[in-house]
Amino acid sequence: MIKNPASSFDLNSYLISKRKKVNAFINEILNNTVNSSRIVQAMHYSLMAGGKRVRPILCIAASEAVGGNADDVLPAACALEMIHTYSLIHDDLPAMDNDDLRRGKPTCHIAFDEATAILAGDALLTLALRILSSINLINEKNSSNWLRVVHRISFAAGHNGMIEGQMRDIASEGTLLSLEELENMHSLKTGALIEAAIFSGALLGGGSPRQIDQLEIYAKNIGLAFQVADDILNVEGDPAVMGKAAGTDNARGKSTYPSIMGLNESKEFAKKIVRNALQALDDFDNKSDPLSAIACYIIERKK
Amino acid sequence: MIKNPASSFDLNSYLISKRKKVNAFINEILNNTVNSSRIVQAMHYSLMAGGKRVRPILCIAASEAVGGNADDVLPAACALEMIHTYSLIHDDLPAMDNDDLRRGKPTCHIAFDEATAILAGDALLTLALRILSSINLINEKNSSNWLRVVHRISFAAGHNGMIEGQMRDIASEGTLLSLEELENMHSLKTGALIEAAIFSGALLGGGSPRQIDQLEIYAKNIGLAFQVADDILNVEGDPAVMGKAAGTDNARGKSTYPSIMGLNESKEFAKKIVRNALQALDDFDNKSDPLSAIACYIIERKK
Repeated sequence: MIKNPASSFDLNSYLISKRKKVNAFINEILNNTVNSSRIVQAMHYSLMAGGKRVRPILCIAASEAVGGNADDVLPAACALEMIHTYSLIHDDLPAMDNDDLRRGKPTCHIAFDEATAILAGDALLTLALRILSSINLINEKNSSNWLRVVHRISFAAGHNGMIEGQMRDIASEGTLLSLEELENMHSLKTGALIEAAIFSGALLGGGSPRQIDQLEIYAKNIGLAFQVADDILNVEGDPAVMGKAAGTDNARGKSTYPSIMGLNESKEFAKKIVRNALQALDDFDNKSDPLSAIACYIIERKK
Repeated sequence: MIKNPASSFDLNSYLISKRKKVNAFINEILNNTVNSSRIVQAMHYSLMAGGKRVRPILCIAASEAVGGNADDVLPAACALEMIHTYSLIHDDLPAMDNDDLRRGKPTCHIAFDEATAILAGDALLTLALRILSSINLINEKNSSNWLRVVHRISFAAGHNGMIEGQMRDIASEGTLLSLEELENMHSLKTGALIEAAIFSGALLGGGSPRQIDQLEIYAKNIGLAFQVADDILNVEGDPAVMGKAAGTDNARGKSTYPSIMGLNESKEFAKKIVRNALQALDDFDNKSDPLSAIACYIIERKK
């Protein structure tokens, strides 16, 4: 076990309350659109399909850690969730991972059709950027910071980040990756957007350059820890608790941390990087408790 | 014939010189990317497939009309071309229009593959927004205007603009539209981004609110004129000059201006809206000559 510096913190209530805030904001955005066409229905369907809101909550928690508040960063938090959702819709397409189900529900192209799913993904990415630049939602005096957020998020989501990660993931199917290749792939595919979430929260929350640097270190470590923990759960998780099958990575010949470094070594590695993440929070006060608790939760969770 | 107030203006040289500027900037952006993967190759392939650079040139010409210059708006001009190109890549996909050729070349999913084409489209849209927010490329003092440009372009390209237009275009296949439905569809599918191009150029070029309003009227009219003229060319254009077949709209049962209002009425209508566009430039000096010449060219061109 890792010593959780925020062990008295009620993470569960925190996650529920922030998730509620994020969902209310997303609903407001979608209900405000004059257009209730099929495309908006598809966007709504995928956005409300039960996501855990990891990126928005990290963005909010980073803002709070530097003394900002949730409302100031909500547009960024929700934009991040829209980008994450668009990436899932496109990854699930027949030409990519060809998945019919996600979180137990039909994927967007199954519930609607392929053309609608492609366009709904495009529209969510576009809406995310529109929200990040909407002077009705953001504080215009802070324009240059919002512009930096647009830049950081579009860098992380683009061909030097998430999209390149997905390309490598597709290309690596059936081949065994080295540890370095695996780490690079995950760092691009999921790490970059998680880091952008933390950066955006920290910058918009008014963090100092030093605080932002420390939170970037935290972000890099928990982004990786998420992936290692996912791979471990896929080996030894309880399907009844996870709500999905275990052992699927192995069956599909996927490169994972346990397959490359071994199961016990993976667990040690996960603990080590969570410790690194916690260490990066050393200079923060108890406003960073949510971030500490999230880091510990990553390797303690059973699903 | 319409009296062209800029009849002595050499439009051809203007178009060639601006196209060169735009292409050089796009090449620089793509060459600066550290990543030379398959995804960047696909982005490059489609961006350099011979586009006329209509949107970038309109953006630059709008900036010049209000006393700005081309270099100040180049990031916006090129971002618009990237968004236009991404929309073509996705529209050509098997699940959408299923086109194998564009401008005589294999479409992106034929030259590469479907997954790469989807991701290359996603990456071009994302790169466009990254360029619009890149403090290395834009003047940071002007942050709030660049943020307005991000907002206007992402609104125009999104589910209240271009993407909704494409949805309606797909849905309308084989059905006869009313004139109003046809106009709405085109206004969303192509008009919105053309208007955003002119708006961005005018705003970043330093235009007054009154000038921007007038240029928006110009934009609305030429956006529509482009479509009416395309429909007319499809009826009576010379395939040898156009480099593509004529009569294809009729054969596919597509709703067009000639099919709904008649050929001669369509020509009169095109002239009327070009006249409206020219009228909107009345208060501008000769720095708006490129815009006048472009408006007249729309209905005089043979391809």
